[in-house]
Amino acid sequence: MLDGLEVEEGKEREDFAGFKIRPRLIVYPKNEEEIVRVVNYARDNKIPIVTYGAGTSLSGHLQCEGCILLDMKYMNQIIEINDIDWYTRVQPAVNLEKLNSELNKKGFFLPPDPASYFLCSVGGATANASGGMRGVKYGTFRDWVLALKVVLPNGKIVKIGEPLRKNRGGYDLLHLFVGSEGTLGIITEIWLRIIPLPQRKTYTIISYVNDIEEAGQLIYLIRRNGIIPEIAEFIDGEVIRALNRELNAGLSEKGGAFIISVEEDYLPKLQTLLENKEYIITEGEEAERIYSIRAQSAIALKAETKLMYVEDIVVPVSRIIDAIKRIKEIEKKYNIRMPIIAHIGDGNLHPNIMLDDPSKAQIIFDEVARVAIELGGSVSGEHGIGVQKARVLAEQIISHNGREVLKIMKGIKDLIDPEDIMNPNKFVELAYKLSELDESTIPR
Amino acid sequence: MLDGLEVEEGKEREDFAGFKIRPRLIVYPKNEEEIVRVVNYARDNKIPIVTYGAGTSLSGHLQCEGCILLDMKYMNQIIEINDIDWYTRVQPAVNLEKLNSELNKKGFFLPPDPASYFLCSVGGATANASGGMRGVKYGTFRDWVLALKVVLPNGKIVKIGEPLRKNRGGYDLLHLFVGSEGTLGIITEIWLRIIPLPQRKTYTIISYVNDIEEAGQLIYLIRRNGIIPEIAEFIDGEVIRALNRELNAGLSEKGGAFIISVEEDYLPKLQTLLENKEYIITEGEEAERIYSIRAQSAIALKAETKLMYVEDIVVPVSRIIDAIKRIKEIEKKYNIRMPIIAHIGDGNLHPNIMLDDPSKAQIIFDEVARVAIELGGSVSGEHGIGVQKARVLAEQIISHNGREVLKIMKGIKDLIDPEDIMNPNKFVELAYKLSELDESTIPR
Repeated sequence: MLDGLEVEEGKEREDFAGFKIRPRLIVYPKNEEEIVRVVNYARDNKIPIVTYGAGTSLSGHLQCEGCILLDMKYMNQIIEINDIDWYTRVQPAVNLEKLNSELNKKGFFLPPDPASYFLCSVGGATANASGGMRGVKYGTFRDWVLALKVVLPNGKIVKIGEPLRKNRGGYDLLHLFVGSEGTLGIITEIWLRIIPLPQRKTYTIISYVNDIEEAGQLIYLIRRNGIIPEIAEFIDGEVIRALNRELNAGLSEKGGAFIISVEEDYLPKLQTLLENKEYIITEGEEAERIYSIRAQSAIALKAETKLMYVEDIVVPVSRIIDAIKRIKEIEKKYNIRMPIIAHIGDGNLHPNIMLDDPSKAQIIFDEVARVAIELGGSVSGEHGIGVQKARVLAEQIISHNGREVLKIMKGIKDLIDPEDIMNPNKFVELAYKLSELDESTIPR
Repeated sequence: MLDGLEVEEGKEREDFAGFKIRPRLIVYPKNEEEIVRVVNYARDNKIPIVTYGAGTSLSGHLQCEGCILLDMKYMNQIIEINDIDWYTRVQPAVNLEKLNSELNKKGFFLPPDPASYFLCSVGGATANASGGMRGVKYGTFRDWVLALKVVLPNGKIVKIGEPLRKNRGGYDLLHLFVGSEGTLGIITEIWLRIIPLPQRKTYTIISYVNDIEEAGQLIYLIRRNGIIPEIAEFIDGEVIRALNRELNAGLSEKGGAFIISVEEDYLPKLQTLLENKEYIITEGEEAERIYSIRAQSAIALKAETKLMYVEDIVVPVSRIIDAIKRIKEIEKKYNIRMPIIAHIGDGNLHPNIMLDDPSKAQIIFDEVARVAIELGGSVSGEHGIGVQKARVLAEQIISHNGREVLKIMKGIKDLIDPEDIMNPNKFVELAYKLSELDESTIPR
């Protein structure tokens, strides 16, 4: 049934975070029709399908045993860049950095900038609704996808959404599919909204602070004063030292660095707010260097530890200081190091759990996630759920939204994928199963 | 069962567009618990519920016979304005203008500006994913709602989404509920993202053009040159004359007026693009007057005709000129007047069908909608579907997205509202029924 397709025997792979992918078959489709054949084959034989872009997901989205791995590497074309309608239409395996460099040539860009932008595929970033530093101003992929072509689990090819800024064409299924982690269908084409490159001069300011509390106070002040930053980041003292050691970053070894970029007309107001602080104003190449150093923070940390688990919680911006205090308590309780990298401007915190012994990882991971749940936040801002966060996802939904909401989500999975072949046993489906099985840990 | 609630016998009402609302009962709930009681009563007795905000919808969203009308007028409080987390939390019947004036006092605003902003409720604008002139830059309500509290058809109170800019907490149900036209549940609270008031000086430019083709060429040029306008509007010669007669607008009676607002640093580039055109640069009060005149265009037209049907199609910006030509042909064919008001910057066109005899209204209406479908657009950008556009919605989805997509949408309605009590027989449900019944007009 798969005659003529490029198929190889299932060799084990590992994703970026170390989750194991053990497929029975790997298929390299060249077009939609081939994908339809694979989907029909998988459905007829009840074999799970996992779609592989660049393998940069962080929460076990790709983990599988005996699945068909659909490696999209050949479907990597930029189909169209439309400079009047302000969209680009691409195949899923196109590299995000490459896409942006083509867009830049025409004066446009796609704002979301996951730290893996130079590695990741646009399809993966769409399936995961990925974000990045620019999220504080521009949101995540959720805010930039206009339409998708998808092969549904029943083998039908459909378009979801329209490549239009405004469209009231029925229930919004687009946002169901964006961030669905491969559980509802195979994305074969993506229309993304693009905008003109910023034309205003921007400045990047580093302010060295004693601790993240001081950075938290700063961001409260900046928000209250109505400054919309391009990026607003925090790295703590441990991250600074790792960056200096690993990348020769040349940063001051203080308790932390608050990094903010603003358009030039915000600069005077920002300087007033920074009065009595130690800060450096940069622009041009030096500003780019700082952005790049910040982007490599997790890599620098990872170079210095055996095992590292990257958390991805979100708390309301106004609760950042509370969140940090709670995270520090967890650090103490388990006697571990948990350096913090944060998109502090939008409340998205990445505590990095460093361990020699992985046996406690999940317990600590979940404990940090529960801080977010208790403070009215979310267990994931941009890395997604996969297998790793399914339990805490269930806890979040049941306590914040209501058990009924988890049921509706599961109902939608069943409606679209009744044979349960699309990346099964992860994300919402796994959260639902855990909530049904394990009465003790899930609040009712 | 409804003891203690404020209930009155069903008196007939008419919505803003003249659709008849003929409830058997009108209930004025004061809180969620009362709504739950009404929903349970309706479900037990299989009576449809229609939710009434301010009655400003335009496509028959409220039309009913023998329904329970839930008039939300008492639930009109602003619960919170959060100047660190940048959201506001409100009850659904709060008036949009009032909300914005409270936000303005704190230095914030909620961008989407439907022309009915001074009348409409925030709940209605959410249920309809409403847009407005600022849509070209800021999108519609779809882009600004963060979370909802909802009474589901089964009587359970749930929260959908989180009041966070980033949240990967399961499938995105939020965007299913935003724009669902009262068909999935009753909205009882809304968290909306807010942003600081613009700090840059803006200018509003009117350029008089010979016709909409010339305006179309202008917008192509502006888009290609990477100018992001605050608003980009067009009104044709007939609209100008009606505004002069009805509102003493003092506009030049040319073939049309292209109205664009930009931040000051775009002005030099824009002036270069307008070389050889007749244009006037305004700011401050005069710019506000022009915005207000443009906002009242439909009212001015309505004053001069017996019956007027407001279309709301979207086409890709690059197809505006083709769309206009096709609309002019329809005008000729039926020998009617169809003056055009357009959010030309995002391709959202409002041809206003003026008739003495309503019998041909739906035929003409559908014919205009089909122009959008054929050009890759949408039958509605911001007014929604209701009963009026259900047939063309089915045509759009089946020809652009695939029949399977309409089935999934209907499946979601059945999943969440299995007894079909929430504003039944409209929107997606009606589109689905028409597509099943009427084989001749719906493409298969």
